[in-house]
Amino acid sequence: MTATTNSFPSGRVVLIGGGPGAWDLITIRGMRALQAADVILTDHLGPSGDLEKLCDVASKEVIDVAKLPYGKQVAQRKTNELLVEHARAGKNVVRLKGGDPFVFGRGFEEVQACAQAGVPCEVIPGVTSAVSVPALAGIPVTQRGLVHSFTVVSGHLPPGHTKSLVDWQALATSGGTISVIMGVKNVRPISEALISGGLAAETPAAVIQEGTTDRERVFRCQLASLAETFERERITSPAVYIIGEVAGLA
Amino acid sequence: MTATTNSFPSGRVVLIGGGPGAWDLITIRGMRALQAADVILTDHLGPSGDLEKLCDVASKEVIDVAKLPYGKQVAQRKTNELLVEHARAGKNVVRLKGGDPFVFGRGFEEVQACAQAGVPCEVIPGVTSAVSVPALAGIPVTQRGLVHSFTVVSGHLPPGHTKSLVDWQALATSGGTISVIMGVKNVRPISEALISGGLAAETPAAVIQEGTTDRERVFRCQLASLAETFERERITSPAVYIIGEVAGLA
Repeated sequence: MTATTNSFPSGRVVLIGGGPGAWDLITIRGMRALQAADVILTDHLGPSGDLEKLCDVASKEVIDVAKLPYGKQVAQRKTNELLVEHARAGKNVVRLKGGDPFVFGRGFEEVQACAQAGVPCEVIPGVTSAVSVPALAGIPVTQRGLVHSFTVVSGHLPPGHTKSLVDWQALATSGGTISVIMGVKNVRPISEALISGGLAAETPAAVIQEGTTDRERVFRCQLASLAETFERERITSPAVYIIGEVAGLA
Repeated sequence: MTATTNSFPSGRVVLIGGGPGAWDLITIRGMRALQAADVILTDHLGPSGDLEKLCDVASKEVIDVAKLPYGKQVAQRKTNELLVEHARAGKNVVRLKGGDPFVFGRGFEEVQACAQAGVPCEVIPGVTSAVSVPALAGIPVTQRGLVHSFTVVSGHLPPGHTKSLVDWQALATSGGTISVIMGVKNVRPISEALISGGLAAETPAAVIQEGTTDRERVFRCQLASLAETFERERITSPAVYIIGEVAGLA
């Protein structure tokens, strides 16, 4: 056939979890989707700084939708619009995210935006920072005989905030490991809420800044001194902190 | 030089998280470690059935240390011994695990065994089934404005078991998504404990059997009918179940 009988563009969106930072902690499926992309929407998380190790960047349009925790934002609405717009133009669009797309990544909002626009959307899960960052710092989130559950929680809102959906009191009594991401700014109120909720002040804790990268910094302390550790070491995001007995394992 | 001046073998161990099942959901770093391996210790989880897609299997010694949840076991102690033994013989040893090595994978026990034996050990994190299996079934573990935390819990012991380390009452009131792995056998007592702990019987729930593979089966229901769903659909492990509002998202 010399002419196409279908004038509807064949664009699509692929949401990729890029992993915690190191470029080679993306999945094979994720790398292949990057290589097949026409357009890549990315922020400053995951392997976005090493895209050239994963695909031929020069052949692609790369759009920065940076949404670092405390930096400038391209609104999520605008990101959704860009995804749909390029897919409707027939492009193979990749949305590259840090960690896993569905762990506080607003990934499902992008899936819903595509669905509402009638744009096919695939999700490729990634290695979540909440588990992998402590792992590479030598801290397992579970350990047989010690802890059989862990909770991953967003610290972007302080306890008691009107929009907070986290019951920090219940979390304090869960007995499981607590992994906090996006919680640099609120480390003091979060520590205090956990202690007032009944979690022992001497519970082991650890913070890992820029985990899995060559800029990684790790500090171990106790829950009671976690906020002080952040201040003394001038911890900035991205950082993950772990509260629980596993943080005290050698 | 025609002779080595160092008679100490250069063996090492690499623990790899192989991801939830699909062979291309392993990380690039994990694939490269498999390709560099002399010996691979694997069970029946993760991409173990598709090793030939990831490396030249014929050139490697592959040892099956199957530890399926309810099947025969090679004791963890024996696995640890094999890791150390082959590394001491100068081999590049890979321990391939399903999901992430530190999410109920006993990975840290293997790290500790290597450390005690003076064997270098590297960890390569993986895509955990607890997040990725629901993700690929269209269920995000978090969603802005709906839920800002999730707990991953092992269901291998029923609530109230003398060795149980999980406070199911606290979990029932956490307000976050609950992702249960290794919990097929105990789905009924777990559901009952959550309901008696205060979690609404009509809370949305979902179960995904053999997620991310071409044998995947997904069923959605409510917490109160979860155990019945397992029985009716004859759910077998590996399966992940999700309890929380996210299980009701379209």
